[in-house]
Amino acid sequence: MTLIVQKYGGSSVADASSIKRVAKRIVEAKRAGHEVVVVVSAMGDTTDELIELAEQITPLPPSREMDILLTAGERISMSLLAMAIANLGVEAQSFTGQQAGVITDTTHGKARIIDVSPGRIRATLDAGAVAIVAGFQGVTQYTNDVTTLGRGGSDTTAVALAAALDAAVCEIYTDVDGVYTADPRIVPSARRIDRISYEEMMEMAASGAKVLGLRCVEYARKFAVPVHVRSSFSGREGTLVTDEIIEGAEPMEEPIISGVAHDRSEAKVTVVGVPDVPGKAARIFEVVAGAEVNIDMIVQNVSAASTGLTDISFTLPATDGQHAIAALKAAQAEIGFASLQYDDTIGKISLIGAGMRSHPGVSAKLFSALSAAGVNIEMISTSEIRISVVTRADHLDDAVRAVHHAFDLDDADTEAVVYGGTGR
Amino acid sequence: MTLIVQKYGGSSVADASSIKRVAKRIVEAKRAGHEVVVVVSAMGDTTDELIELAEQITPLPPSREMDILLTAGERISMSLLAMAIANLGVEAQSFTGQQAGVITDTTHGKARIIDVSPGRIRATLDAGAVAIVAGFQGVTQYTNDVTTLGRGGSDTTAVALAAALDAAVCEIYTDVDGVYTADPRIVPSARRIDRISYEEMMEMAASGAKVLGLRCVEYARKFAVPVHVRSSFSGREGTLVTDEIIEGAEPMEEPIISGVAHDRSEAKVTVVGVPDVPGKAARIFEVVAGAEVNIDMIVQNVSAASTGLTDISFTLPATDGQHAIAALKAAQAEIGFASLQYDDTIGKISLIGAGMRSHPGVSAKLFSALSAAGVNIEMISTSEIRISVVTRADHLDDAVRAVHHAFDLDDADTEAVVYGGTGR
Repeated sequence: MTLIVQKYGGSSVADASSIKRVAKRIVEAKRAGHEVVVVVSAMGDTTDELIELAEQITPLPPSREMDILLTAGERISMSLLAMAIANLGVEAQSFTGQQAGVITDTTHGKARIIDVSPGRIRATLDAGAVAIVAGFQGVTQYTNDVTTLGRGGSDTTAVALAAALDAAVCEIYTDVDGVYTADPRIVPSARRIDRISYEEMMEMAASGAKVLGLRCVEYARKFAVPVHVRSSFSGREGTLVTDEIIEGAEPMEEPIISGVAHDRSEAKVTVVGVPDVPGKAARIFEVVAGAEVNIDMIVQNVSAASTGLTDISFTLPATDGQHAIAALKAAQAEIGFASLQYDDTIGKISLIGAGMRSHPGVSAKLFSALSAAGVNIEMISTSEIRISVVTRADHLDDAVRAVHHAFDLDDADTEAVVYGGTGR
Repeated sequence: MTLIVQKYGGSSVADASSIKRVAKRIVEAKRAGHEVVVVVSAMGDTTDELIELAEQITPLPPSREMDILLTAGERISMSLLAMAIANLGVEAQSFTGQQAGVITDTTHGKARIIDVSPGRIRATLDAGAVAIVAGFQGVTQYTNDVTTLGRGGSDTTAVALAAALDAAVCEIYTDVDGVYTADPRIVPSARRIDRISYEEMMEMAASGAKVLGLRCVEYARKFAVPVHVRSSFSGREGTLVTDEIIEGAEPMEEPIISGVAHDRSEAKVTVVGVPDVPGKAARIFEVVAGAEVNIDMIVQNVSAASTGLTDISFTLPATDGQHAIAALKAAQAEIGFASLQYDDTIGKISLIGAGMRSHPGVSAKLFSALSAAGVNIEMISTSEIRISVVTRADHLDDAVRAVHHAFDLDDADTEAVVYGGTGR
């Protein structure tokens, strides 16, 4: 008997009829002889509606109370799903994050899982029932307070449970049928990737691919949990995220590039006229870090010898832009820079592939493809298996198509299949 | 410093602006120097909406899952209320039934509180904050499963917490301003009762007065918790439910009758042609009890000597009617009765008053008032401080008005004030 963890997102359980459809799929897996643990998100727009209610009450809801409020959403979806499964003649019990033993730190709103003690889930499976677990939530270790894991939290719950229960696979059901070589809305000839390594998937997630969250993939890699991303609206195989080397697999020619990711959610801050003396750059990033803002890419211009001043640019999530600007302005006199520029009309394109480690010339080919497409490069950053480039936002789609084509990622045969509204 | 427990019902927290209004009232009590614990129900129609969702999924939802579903409602209202209080500059934390230490038995859907361990609530008060507690819910002792307490459960939560915390008073805020001598919708001249004993209030609750649930009053009597029923829409004093004898109070002439309650929710079952031999009546009520149906009044006709047969009638909640009928039909051959009659067009009027213990002639006055009003009496049942009479349902309003007037309960000065939609 194989233990599998299935995770269904909000769009898969948006209403009563969707919940019944998902229940059927779960019952099929159970009747096929598997032990089944299901992680479920809140129904459709429930979370957004609860956030709106809170905003009607106060502009600054305490984060502990916000977490209690938001976790009501999974409570509703998980109990309804358990009822729907019971209605098909299979026993099912639902469990909150706390009951499932999901222990987190105390960072309300984006807590991190520090341990999973799935004793009740194991007992439920041993009794022959399906266990339904609320995604996105946990409980603090000593104070027994409810926490939420932040965006993509239900995926992380699923992978963490799969690791703790030593599941054969963690299936992430969503409204697309896998991970693509590029966003099919921009590149209609994008191919579904059959298999991708944890490292590549982490770079994809960090570079704007929204199918899986970064934390979820990090967790899967740490505990070697195979993750299968697939559609809850079809029976097709999706994308398997796993180790690069699979035991017993035939050695094969790996593609150099796995995919092209893009991100429109960042903004660029330029600190103009920074005195070019040691410690000033460090101080700028201390100030930004102190505002709890994560920085992505950094570029420092060559100092003009005549003035002794330099410009420093960095990118960050646009949602954090005003926090960073406010923090820097407050420190302007101390640091001694001249002014700040803020630009939220940038885009970022990233080329990801474990194969680029052993293949020189990938950057050159990328830059030449962008140049041929008339796309200007503003910033560059690289890792061992990724090259990212910042462009104007309105050049981003052209850039993605040109690069996807230049690296022979197009699939002439298959049109990408995108289900549902979000098209992620 | 006095500790008070306040309970707000669903109509008092129906939307964001109601929640803000209630938050102001709580903050006033806190700023007046009290320690404040607040018990809150789900917002407005939330519970009914969740029940409807479950009905879309399955006709027979498992009760454990139903309880998980329904408790989402208080989770939402309690966190929003805590946010609204925080927004007024007073610290507040919300707690689930489990976090508040409300331990129940395992009867999902109508669990009974078996213990309250309010350690976290006490600590929250000690830290100077307001504690908000989810009404209507608890957790089982060993299995840590979520339970609900059934209709009126939030009132019981409030009284149980007041007892466990040794509160000075438990204030039940509702959409009427107290307990009345009769339903003001039927008797516009009904008077608000300033003070009523636990025993009388229990009889009122058991006889159809809906302001407080029977269990809540039982609990309050057991632990001598003074309960103050008042409106969340005004500052008026309401009705104090307390011991009959108040230490230090002036001895005073008690009114003979406290109030007139009525109930339209019952039905009458008549078992026709029961062999008049020992054990048959007992067997009938064993069968009905086996169907988990509670019986109210019982009447057995005088046996007709010629046939050796008798008829037995009893009343029960109309919602349980079909269960009882089905159980009796299944046992018809064994018991040997001829047929069953079912009548859900009955009404019950009850006269309640501790004073009737020492005043003879109350029954006679009651029957004569009903007779003068042309109301026929079908069944009678009495306790030490209550007389109940079953009439035709369409005579019930006339009966209530006639009896209320006959016992001089009318208040010529005050029009009853009924707020909100339910008019309870």
